[in-house]
Amino acid sequence: MLVVMRDHASRSDISHVVEVLEGAGAQAHLSQGEVKTIIGVIGDRETIYSLELEGLPGVESIVRVLKPYKLVSREFQPEDTVVTLSQGSSIGGGAFAAIAGPCSVESPEQMTTVARAVSGSGAAMLRGGAYKPRTSPYAFQGLGVDGLRMMREAADEFGLPVVTEVLDVRDAQTVAEWADVLQVGARNMQNFMMLDELGKMGKPVLLKRGLSATIEEVLSAAEYVLKGGNRDLILCERGIRTFETYTRNTLDLAAVAALKSLTHLPIIVDPSHATGRRELVAPMAKAAVVAGADGIMVEVHPDPERARCDGPQSLDMPGFEDLMRGLVPLMDLSGKHSGAAS
Amino acid sequence: MLVVMRDHASRSDISHVVEVLEGAGAQAHLSQGEVKTIIGVIGDRETIYSLELEGLPGVESIVRVLKPYKLVSREFQPEDTVVTLSQGSSIGGGAFAAIAGPCSVESPEQMTTVARAVSGSGAAMLRGGAYKPRTSPYAFQGLGVDGLRMMREAADEFGLPVVTEVLDVRDAQTVAEWADVLQVGARNMQNFMMLDELGKMGKPVLLKRGLSATIEEVLSAAEYVLKGGNRDLILCERGIRTFETYTRNTLDLAAVAALKSLTHLPIIVDPSHATGRRELVAPMAKAAVVAGADGIMVEVHPDPERARCDGPQSLDMPGFEDLMRGLVPLMDLSGKHSGAAS
Amino acid sequence: MLVVMRDHASRSDISHVVEVLEGAGAQAHLSQGEVKTIIGVIGDRETIYSLELEGLPGVESIVRVLKPYKLVSREFQPEDTVVTLSQGSSIGGGAFAAIAGPCSVESPEQMTTVARAVSGSGAAMLRGGAYKPRTSPYAFQGLGVDGLRMMREAADEFGLPVVTEVLDVRDAQTVAEWADVLQVGARNMQNFMMLDELGKMGKPVLLKRGLSATIEEVLSAAEYVLKGGNRDLILCERGIRTFETYTRNTLDLAAVAALKSLTHLPIIVDPSHATGRRELVAPMAKAAVVAGADGIMVEVHPDPERARCDGPQSLDMPGFEDLMRGLVPLMDLSGKHSGAAS
Amino acid sequence: MLVVMRDHASRSDISHVVEVLEGAGAQAHLSQGEVKTIIGVIGDRETIYSLELEGLPGVESIVRVLKPYKLVSREFQPEDTVVTLSQGSSIGGGAFAAIAGPCSVESPEQMTTVARAVSGSGAAMLRGGAYKPRTSPYAFQGLGVDGLRMMREAADEFGLPVVTEVLDVRDAQTVAEWADVLQVGARNMQNFMMLDELGKMGKPVLLKRGLSATIEEVLSAAEYVLKGGNRDLILCERGIRTFETYTRNTLDLAAVAALKSLTHLPIIVDPSHATGRRELVAPMAKAAVVAGADGIMVEVHPDPERARCDGPQSLDMPGFEDLMRGLVPLMDLSGKHSGAAS
Repeated sequence: MLVVMRDHASRSDISHVVEVLEGAGAQAHLSQGEVKTIIGVIGDRETIYSLELEGLPGVESIVRVLKPYKLVSREFQPEDTVVTLSQGSSIGGGAFAAIAGPCSVESPEQMTTVARAVSGSGAAMLRGGAYKPRTSPYAFQGLGVDGLRMMREAADEFGLPVVTEVLDVRDAQTVAEWADVLQVGARNMQNFMMLDELGKMGKPVLLKRGLSATIEEVLSAAEYVLKGGNRDLILCERGIRTFETYTRNTLDLAAVAALKSLTHLPIIVDPSHATGRRELVAPMAKAAVVAGADGIMVEVHPDPERARCDGPQSLDMPGFEDLMRGLVPLMDLSGKHSGAAS
Repeated sequence: MLVVMRDHASRSDISHVVEVLEGAGAQAHLSQGEVKTIIGVIGDRETIYSLELEGLPGVESIVRVLKPYKLVSREFQPEDTVVTLSQGSSIGGGAFAAIAGPCSVESPEQMTTVARAVSGSGAAMLRGGAYKPRTSPYAFQGLGVDGLRMMREAADEFGLPVVTEVLDVRDAQTVAEWADVLQVGARNMQNFMMLDELGKMGKPVLLKRGLSATIEEVLSAAEYVLKGGNRDLILCERGIRTFETYTRNTLDLAAVAALKSLTHLPIIVDPSHATGRRELVAPMAKAAVVAGADGIMVEVHPDPERARCDGPQSLDMPGFEDLMRGLVPLMDLSGKHSGAAS
Repeated sequence: MLVVMRDHASRSDISHVVEVLEGAGAQAHLSQGEVKTIIGVIGDRETIYSLELEGLPGVESIVRVLKPYKLVSREFQPEDTVVTLSQGSSIGGGAFAAIAGPCSVESPEQMTTVARAVSGSGAAMLRGGAYKPRTSPYAFQGLGVDGLRMMREAADEFGLPVVTEVLDVRDAQTVAEWADVLQVGARNMQNFMMLDELGKMGKPVLLKRGLSATIEEVLSAAEYVLKGGNRDLILCERGIRTFETYTRNTLDLAAVAALKSLTHLPIIVDPSHATGRRELVAPMAKAAVVAGADGIMVEVHPDPERARCDGPQSLDMPGFEDLMRGLVPLMDLSGKHSGAAS
Repeated sequence: MLVVMRDHASRSDISHVVEVLEGAGAQAHLSQGEVKTIIGVIGDRETIYSLELEGLPGVESIVRVLKPYKLVSREFQPEDTVVTLSQGSSIGGGAFAAIAGPCSVESPEQMTTVARAVSGSGAAMLRGGAYKPRTSPYAFQGLGVDGLRMMREAADEFGLPVVTEVLDVRDAQTVAEWADVLQVGARNMQNFMMLDELGKMGKPVLLKRGLSATIEEVLSAAEYVLKGGNRDLILCERGIRTFETYTRNTLDLAAVAALKSLTHLPIIVDPSHATGRRELVAPMAKAAVVAGADGIMVEVHPDPERARCDGPQSLDMPGFEDLMRGLVPLMDLSGKHSGAAS
C-alpha cells in the first residue's frame, strides 16, 4: 500500500502517518521529493486495512497495492479449484460444465421434460428457480418449496445435481436440503450476511457477479465465502449494467479471462441473462469457452413462448442440443472435457 | 402496455396475442400498418404483468406504458407522505430533516459527543452504523448490538430518533427494538425478502438507491415495502456508479427532482457517500435542498481523521454546524421548514 | 508519479527503470519492501510523460500523481478567469451568465423574438445552432451561414453576444466572423485538432464535457486550448451517459463543485441537455447556482412544441423568465452577480 | 413509430397530432383506451423524423420502431458486404482479416520489421498511427506525413494494404494518398462532418465504435458514410466505457454478434484497446472469431517495452505469430478463411 501525501505535507503530518503505521506493526518506507512524499507500507493486510489511513492529516490518497482478498487468489493457491458433486459432475481444472434449465420451475412435467433433454444433450447440472427475485412485487415470485421438490425429483431421475438460488438467508437451510449448489443472485452479491452464512455451510456455492460489481468486488465477495471455510465456490459472469440498451446487460468476457489469472476458482458464463436475447446465447456461449470459462449456465424451456419468465432469452430443447454440439470442438481446442458425470 | 409485433407478423400470431389478452380480461386495440402491427393493451396491471407476453410467437417487444408500481405513485396518492417519529421529528410535506452521525458507532463517548453537536446544530435524527456492509471481509464490521445500545442512549439524551442499517433480515427485529428508522443499504436495495419483511413491520424505513438502480427500480423496490402495509418510507439518493473516478459515485440530483414528481414519498440525499469527498458535501447538500430534497443524510465525526470508516467524506462538528447554517436560507427559499422536533 | 514494480521484481529491472528516469533528468526515489518496490519520480511533467514507463520490464503499473494538465489548474493560476465579451457581458469571478436561445436557428423572426425575450429576462448571451450534430443523417442539420446571420442580427439588436457551435474545424473561421463564443460540442470534446485550432484563434471558447469524459479528460481537453495561447475558455457540464434512461443524461453537479476547486476557468451547466425534460430544467439550474456554477445554458424557444429540435427540453419564454427570477435570490446567497451587460 | 399520448390527452391534442402526421403524408392509426391513446405511424422515415413530434401538445413520448438508419441494415442489403483492397486482401463474407502493427509509427526500421513479421504470420493489413489522438497535449502526437511515408514503404515491400487514422478532416486527402483504409477513431465516431467527408471519398473506411456509443449510434454513424456513396465500410468494436477499471475498456462481444444480424457490413474487434492488457489480447481475439467477427485489429511492436505508446497492450512479434496460429482452427470451425492476399 502506498500513502500519497498532499503537496508540501508538513513533517509532522508525515511523521504522524509513519507512527500510526509502525504502531500497528507495519513498516513504512519514505520516498520524499521536493513537493510530494510517498510512504510505501509493508505489513499485515488485515491490520493495515483497519487503520483507515485516508483520514489522517496531510494524506492525499491511498493506493492499494494490497488486494482486499487473499484466499481466492492464484498466489495463495496456484492450482485450479475443482468442485465435484456427489452425482459425479465436476467443474474446474479442465472440466467444463453446462448448467441448464428453466428460469422458473413451473410443474413436475416441465422439469422432467427439461431434465431429460438437457441430460441427454450433455448438461452437467440442472438449474431452475423456485424463489425468483423480481423487480416488481406484482410479478410471479416462484413456487417455493414445491418448486424445489419438483426440481429435485426431476434431477434425480437423470442423475443430475441441482443448482438453485437462495433468495433469503433464512431459507438457506431449506434450500440446502433440496439442492446441490446454492446460487447467490446478482442482486445479492454484496449481501454480506448471506455470503457469511453460505461460507459456513457445507454446500457448493455459485456466486453471480453483481450488476455493477468490479472484478475486485467479485473476488472480495468470494473471499467472504472462503473465509468461512467453504472452498467449493463457482463464480459466474452474467453481464454488467452499462448504457447499452440493445442487450439486457453487457457480457464482460475479458473479466472471465482476467479472473482465470487472478483466482483459482472456476468461472462460468450466463449468456442468457447477459444478453437477454435468444439469438445471442449460442455465439456468447461459444465465445465463453474460448475465453477460458469453465462452464455456462443457460436457460432452457420446453416452450419458451409460454415460459413464466425470461422467455425471450430461453432456448428451446433442440436449440440447447445444437448449442452443446457446437461447443464440443471448441472445448477440444481449449483442452477442456465435459464435466457431466459419465 | 403496447405489444409491438415483428415486421409482417402473421394474422394467426396477432390473433393469438389478442386471445391471450382477452382471455385474461384485458382489452386489446390493434393498430395495423403495412409492415408493423401494434397492439395497445388496457387492463389490470398485475394480471397483464403475469402474462409475460414477450414470449408469444411473433412478438418483437413490449413497451410498458404501465409502470411496475402503483402505491408509491403520485397518481395513487397526490399529497406528500409525511413520516413522523415519536420524538417529534418529521420529514416530507415541507419538513426538511437533516440526519447526521458517524459512519460507524465506535464508543459511547463518540456517540454522545456527536449527538450533542448535531442536535445543537438542528439535526432531526441521529445516524450511525452498528452493522457495516464492507466490501472486504477483513475490514471493520461494526459493534453490533453494543453499537445499537450506545446510539440509542446518546440519542435519547438529546431527544433524537435513531436511523440505522439492517444488514441482515434476521436482525430486523433486534434493530427495530433499538432504532426508530430502519435503513436498507444500497447493496440491499433489491434484497426483496428484506423489503418484504420491512413492509410488514411497523417501523419507518429508509431505502437507499442501489449502486446501479434506475429510478423505476427504486420505485419498484419501494412498492415492495408499501405493499406489505408499511406507508412510512423515505427514499435516499446516494449516488450511482459511473465511469467517473474522481468522486466515489455520481450524485444524481435530477433523480431527486424527478422522484418528487413521480412519488409522494419523502426523498433525501446523502452527499457523503455520493461524493466520498468532504469538500463536496456542503455544496451538494445545498444543491439538494434546491433540487427539492426533503432532507439530507450526512456523516459527522468528532475527529474524522481517526474515524474507523469513511473518514475522508465525514464532516467534523463545526463543519456540520456551518453546513446547517448555510442551509437555512435555502430552505426558506424552497418553502421548507426544519423537521427537527422543536 | 509512482512506478509500482511487480512482486519480486529483479534488481536489474529496478535499476533499469531508475536509469531510464535519471537519463531523462528525473529523480527516482526507491521504496523497497520485501515483496514490492515502488519508485517515486520527481521531474519535468512533459519529459516523464514521454517515457511511457508502463512498457519497461518488471513494471506493474504507473500511478500518476502528476496531472496531465497544468495551465488550467488552480495551482498554476489561483485567481478565477473572467471571460468578458465586447458587448460587456462577462462570466467567471462572481459574474453569473445565463446563455439562452433555441436548439436550432429556424428563422429571423424566431431569433428576434427569442433574443428580445431572453435579453429582457436577464440573459447575458444568445445561443442557437446553425450547424447541428445529429445522430441520424436524416435529421435536420441546421441552416448554416444563413442561421449564423439570423442569430447575429437578432443578437445585435439587443446587444447580446452570440454563442454557437463549430461542428467542423474547416468552418471555424466562418463561424468566428459571426459569433462571439465558439462552442465545442460534447461529441467533439476530444476532437484534438479542433481544440488545437481554437487554441490559436482569438475568440472565447465554450467546451462541453464529452458524453463519457472524466473530469481529468475535460481538463486535459481544456489544456489543449490554453496551450495554444487562448485563455478565454468556459467549461460546460451537460450530463454524462449512464444506465439511467428516465433522464437523457445524468447531470453531474458534483463535477461542477470539483472543477471549481481544480481549475480557475468558469464552469456553466446545461440543464436542458443534461435532463432532456423541460420540468427538470428549472430545479437543476437552481441547483447549479448553489453548486458553484458560473452560469447556465438553457434552450428557450418561442413555441417549444413546434421546435425543429429538442422541443421536449426547451423552455418557452415565460418559463425562462420565471427561471431567471427564481435564480436571483440564489445568486445573491452564493455571492454572484449577473454577468449580463448593464 | 408510436406516439404515446399523455393519460387523458384531449381530443384536440390527439387530432392535432394526427393532422400533423397526415399533413406530412404519413398514416396514423389510433389505439384508444380509457386512459391512454397510442398513435401508430406508418410512412417515410426521413419525413417522419423531421416532424419532431415529441414537442406536440399532449404527447408523452415517442417510441421509435423505425430505425434511424437504412442503407447499413440487413433488410436493405441481405448479403454481406466484402471490402477488397487493391493488394488483394479482403474482409467480410467469409474472409477474416487480421490487421496488425504498432500503436505509432516510430521509424522506417520499426515499420519494416513489423511489416515483415505480421505479413509472415498471415496479417491481411498493416496498421500504424501517424497522427495520434492523445488525451494530454503533452504526450507524443505522432510523426505525421513522415510516418505515413514510412508505413507505406514498409507495407509495399510486403504487399500489405495500410490502415491508419484520419485525426483531422483537413488531412483526409493527404492520408488518402498514402493509406488504403481510412480509420475514424473512437473519439471521432460522431464527428459527423468527417463521416460526411469520408462518405464522399473513394477509399474504404474503418469506423471505430465511440467510447459510449450504443449499437444504434454506431449504425447511424455508419449510415453517414454510406449515404455519401461510399459502400466500403468496416466497423470496429473496441470496448466501451464502464465502471470497471481492471480493463481499459469493456469489450462488448455481444455487440459483434448483434451487429452481424443487424448490418451487412464487416465487423472487426480490437482486443488491444478493449482490454489494455497484453495477456488478454489473445483470449479476446479468439473469442471474437467465435462471436462472428470478420477480423481483428491488434497492436504489435518489435519491442513493446520501448514502444512510444500503448506498450502494455502490444504483443511482440512472436506473440502475434502464436495468436495467428491459434486462430486458424477457430476460423475453420466458424467457416472463415484468411482475408490476406495469397
